[in-house]
Amino acid sequence: MTYCIGMVLDEGVIMAADTRTNAGVDHVATFPKLFTFENTGERIIIVATSGNLATSQRVISLLKQQIDREEPVNLYTCDSLFQVAELVGSTLLASESHYRSNNPMSGVDFSSNFLVSGQILGHEPEMYHIYPEGNFIRTCQDTPFFQIGESKYGKPILDRIITTETPLNQAMKCALISFDSTMHSNLSVGMPIDIVIYRRDSLEVKIERLEQDDRYFNRLARAWGGGLRQLFDQLP
Amino acid sequence: MTYCIGMVLDEGVIMAADTRTNAGVDHVATFPKLFTFENTGERIIIVATSGNLATSQRVISLLKQQIDREEPVNLYTCDSLFQVAELVGSTLLASESHYRSNNPMSGVDFSSNFLVSGQILGHEPEMYHIYPEGNFIRTCQDTPFFQIGESKYGKPILDRIITTETPLNQAMKCALISFDSTMHSNLSVGMPIDIVIYRRDSLEVKIERLEQDDRYFNRLARAWGGGLRQLFDQLP
Repeated sequence: MTYCIGMVLDEGVIMAADTRTNAGVDHVATFPKLFTFENTGERIIIVATSGNLATSQRVISLLKQQIDREEPVNLYTCDSLFQVAELVGSTLLASESHYRSNNPMSGVDFSSNFLVSGQILGHEPEMYHIYPEGNFIRTCQDTPFFQIGESKYGKPILDRIITTETPLNQAMKCALISFDSTMHSNLSVGMPIDIVIYRRDSLEVKIERLEQDDRYFNRLARAWGGGLRQLFDQLP
Repeated sequence: MTYCIGMVLDEGVIMAADTRTNAGVDHVATFPKLFTFENTGERIIIVATSGNLATSQRVISLLKQQIDREEPVNLYTCDSLFQVAELVGSTLLASESHYRSNNPMSGVDFSSNFLVSGQILGHEPEMYHIYPEGNFIRTCQDTPFFQIGESKYGKPILDRIITTETPLNQAMKCALISFDSTMHSNLSVGMPIDIVIYRRDSLEVKIERLEQDDRYFNRLARAWGGGLRQLFDQLP
């Protein structure tokens, strides 16, 4: 499985994705599921994927190929992030259909989910959750975060903490706690974690990787686990 | 949906179940999902159900009918809780098959999951998770709790706190926090909550109901929510 979080906040955008993939418990591997596209100073786009890895990788490859071949419609020619979402949605649906029509009798689930966020110069940052059907929804003031993959274990802490006013560093801390809870309860989500902290209007983006032995993450996880037990013991 | 927790601890057995049922969001109702059977001084059996309500209720009715009609095999004649689990499993499977064979073309999911726990005089307390297929697993020293229904939101806190050595009152506190997290993140789980705190070897059992306005539960939920935010703010 997979776990990805995306948030659109007043200060900018947070995205985080684990890197564990599994095709059965005897076929576990590490693959990136967080990707960035940057047209220097003009736009940045961040994409997180869950679901069928072959489908997700095909979509990312096609999106890159459209840019490389300078096709009329590509991630860098879209006028808005809404159009970017339309492009990713149609590329996703085409990829799933491609594999499905090649394997009409197969029971394999070829579907994927995407989170697409970013900012275009002169526009607000936005984020879309793109469903396997190619349709999508956008974050809003009331619901500033999306999750894809194994989302349930780590949802309670996000529900309690995250609003659009949450500062970027606090939001990333909350995302990491959400990952820690998920990884405690579900083996299919695992380190390393890829993260992006995008500051609004900077139009610069960089993926950072938290490795298994990351000192801050481990300190945070220990402090959270210990604090939870202490809090629990103090309760009436 | 539903959320039920069961634990077998050194001091006894904890079971808890919400009471919300929904057949679509416009058909929400309150039904008990926690049931007890008591043969005074000789055995107590506690059953929690999730899944199709008609199937669950049919199984409970059949189990009661077997006792009332003094059938040779009923909950009070089984030699062990293993046999009790076999009886519940076969009754469950028969009920599902009954509805399925009556509706061969229906897409309705007639399946249910059961937690069955209790104690028979001279035996240890035990708990079984009975699957829709009629097979089942038992708790053990390493895994002393089971969940059925919407189990993911509330699993992290159980994973962190519960061992067989957890005292009954602490375990019930943890169960209630797990319910609070689940109800925060999922509307299909709701108050009131039915609970059983069974002290080992007492062979007496009583269901207590925590209503929406339960003072202790609300105080606990506020203290937990406030404490979490405070803990979060203090983290590095």
